[in-house]
Amino acid sequence: MQPSTPYLRIDLKKAKRNITGLAEYGREHGIGLRPHTKTHKSLLFAGLQLQAGAVGLTVAKPGEAEVMAAMGSDLLVAYPVVDPNGCRRIAELARDSTLRVAVDTVAAARGLGAAAVTAGSTLGVLIDLDVGMHRTGVQTPAAALALAQVVAGIPGLRIDGLFSYPGQVWAKREAQAEPLGQVADLLQQAIQLFSASGFSTGIVSGGSTPTAYQSALIPQLTEIRSGTYIFNDMNTVHGGYRTLDDCAATIVCTVVSDAVPGQVIVDAGSKTLTMDRCFPAPDSGHGTIVEYPEARISALSEEHGQVDITRCASAPRVGDRVTVIPNHICPCVNLQDQMWLDAGGELEPILVDARGKVF
Amino acid sequence: MQPSTPYLRIDLKKAKRNITGLAEYGREHGIGLRPHTKTHKSLLFAGLQLQAGAVGLTVAKPGEAEVMAAMGSDLLVAYPVVDPNGCRRIAELARDSTLRVAVDTVAAARGLGAAAVTAGSTLGVLIDLDVGMHRTGVQTPAAALALAQVVAGIPGLRIDGLFSYPGQVWAKREAQAEPLGQVADLLQQAIQLFSASGFSTGIVSGGSTPTAYQSALIPQLTEIRSGTYIFNDMNTVHGGYRTLDDCAATIVCTVVSDAVPGQVIVDAGSKTLTMDRCFPAPDSGHGTIVEYPEARISALSEEHGQVDITRCASAPRVGDRVTVIPNHICPCVNLQDQMWLDAGGELEPILVDARGKVF
Repeated sequence: MQPSTPYLRIDLKKAKRNITGLAEYGREHGIGLRPHTKTHKSLLFAGLQLQAGAVGLTVAKPGEAEVMAAMGSDLLVAYPVVDPNGCRRIAELARDSTLRVAVDTVAAARGLGAAAVTAGSTLGVLIDLDVGMHRTGVQTPAAALALAQVVAGIPGLRIDGLFSYPGQVWAKREAQAEPLGQVADLLQQAIQLFSASGFSTGIVSGGSTPTAYQSALIPQLTEIRSGTYIFNDMNTVHGGYRTLDDCAATIVCTVVSDAVPGQVIVDAGSKTLTMDRCFPAPDSGHGTIVEYPEARISALSEEHGQVDITRCASAPRVGDRVTVIPNHICPCVNLQDQMWLDAGGELEPILVDARGKVF
Repeated sequence: MQPSTPYLRIDLKKAKRNITGLAEYGREHGIGLRPHTKTHKSLLFAGLQLQAGAVGLTVAKPGEAEVMAAMGSDLLVAYPVVDPNGCRRIAELARDSTLRVAVDTVAAARGLGAAAVTAGSTLGVLIDLDVGMHRTGVQTPAAALALAQVVAGIPGLRIDGLFSYPGQVWAKREAQAEPLGQVADLLQQAIQLFSASGFSTGIVSGGSTPTAYQSALIPQLTEIRSGTYIFNDMNTVHGGYRTLDDCAATIVCTVVSDAVPGQVIVDAGSKTLTMDRCFPAPDSGHGTIVEYPEARISALSEEHGQVDITRCASAPRVGDRVTVIPNHICPCVNLQDQMWLDAGGELEPILVDARGKVF
């Protein structure tokens, strides 16, 4: 029997191809890959990434670190952990694993240091430098040095290098040279300041999925944290970074109504596809239906996907199953208790191990 | 110790006041209340609603019905269940509970009927009439009669009345008379056709939270299915249906960065607040911070809420906890494994019993 719809199906062959593709790029250019596990939230896929040569794993929240610690790999918490419970949990994990945290304020550093001292562990710190995303990160290389000087005096912490996230770079690949060159300049300045003061730049972390295959344009990077590359989605397709054929994760859903003319309803709404718009193509609707590319998922309620079929030569019927590639796959994975692995034969369910780890 | 952030806090007094408020309105106007449990997804709150006089409960998906069946109340599945697994599960539940399903296609009716026959149960059917939302529902009262005539011939099904959803009515309360009058006219026509053919109109189901306290403008309704009214959110506040003081559910989060000037980052992003825009005020940002009403949650990543503080006289500091009222509370509840009840003393965690029931 088929799984109940809507369900998350992973094409294992495509996911493995995506894993090895970026692993090979990293090897070729001497850049380590520390995949962000927020995309798959799964021990199985983390294991495949490590087997392919990943230098470690990336997480955002302490709860994700607790799940991924089972892999025995060293972990980067790419997030300024501040909540005292979170600092304690990270510090306790660091007794048995190498844990590093991206830090951009003295307050966060003090909280992490105090927790590490209490836990009897040491936390590695990467100083988060804003390279243009303007989300987190100290504002200048000089400010990165100033923060490092404070961190160096906090017991329980060890400076391991620099952290950056070029999340603002969504241009097509051929237009990334200039913005990534600016990132490289900033990192180079920070590295020089760190080196002159004797602070480690053993790790210079960066990367995203849109810029993954352009990482060599930032020669300062020792490792990148791409996450979405393992599955891809309409963001990476419309952005021109990958193709529909590289999309390894899809939502299988059922047409449940055709009562309103020119439209069908599928049983995947925002509770399955999320309300995330496609970043490079915000008017493209809420995902793409593989079997009916002319159809447009025009609106979502929590459980209803409204599909405009007025441009379709033929339309799906009530009871038909269709396959949707979401705009943004990471939060869709977070909405599922399990995913179904498609390796050509019977579908096999596995748990989404780090689902719902918001803290 | 405080719960880790971000967490979902429920002000129990406000939630109870919201429950009794609409219950009293229903009693006063002779309209039954069958709350949609998708908002709270919780047996505890379903129990409070039943204690306050609810005539039954509403769910969308079979998995929600399986959870809520524990309350022993009769259930309305306000969704066209089509997937064969879903039909089977609904039909099996109907052996021990009264189950009704909203139906708008012959295909759905046949699937449900076949499942009921296999399970040895009977499913009540409400014929879904589109009253202007154009999401599901047959298009005319005559089409409702035609579908009822088919359903009447399908073993395992029993016609119990009519279903409608005025989801298009988001006007301020004082501007609802005309659109709700149109809904009333359509329902009246369908009732007359059903009565003339001897089909039951014992249940005429409708309602939403925006129109909840205007339900008496549709005298045909025997019951309404409001859901959000129990907690409220920025949709109901900006819509003018309720006030900030009626918002019983909030997200408590921690400020984790102030490294970028004019902005702070909170640890609630789209994985906690969702990307749902505020429907009546789409430019109002991603929720309201109670302690800093001039702040604007201007952008969300999965784990980062970017808060513009340039209009704030004072701003929260790294480590401070702040309280967010989300735009749309229902999908936020779905993202949490637990919610924390605030009854004035220690916070008490309860499970979100029907979290993640997408099928």
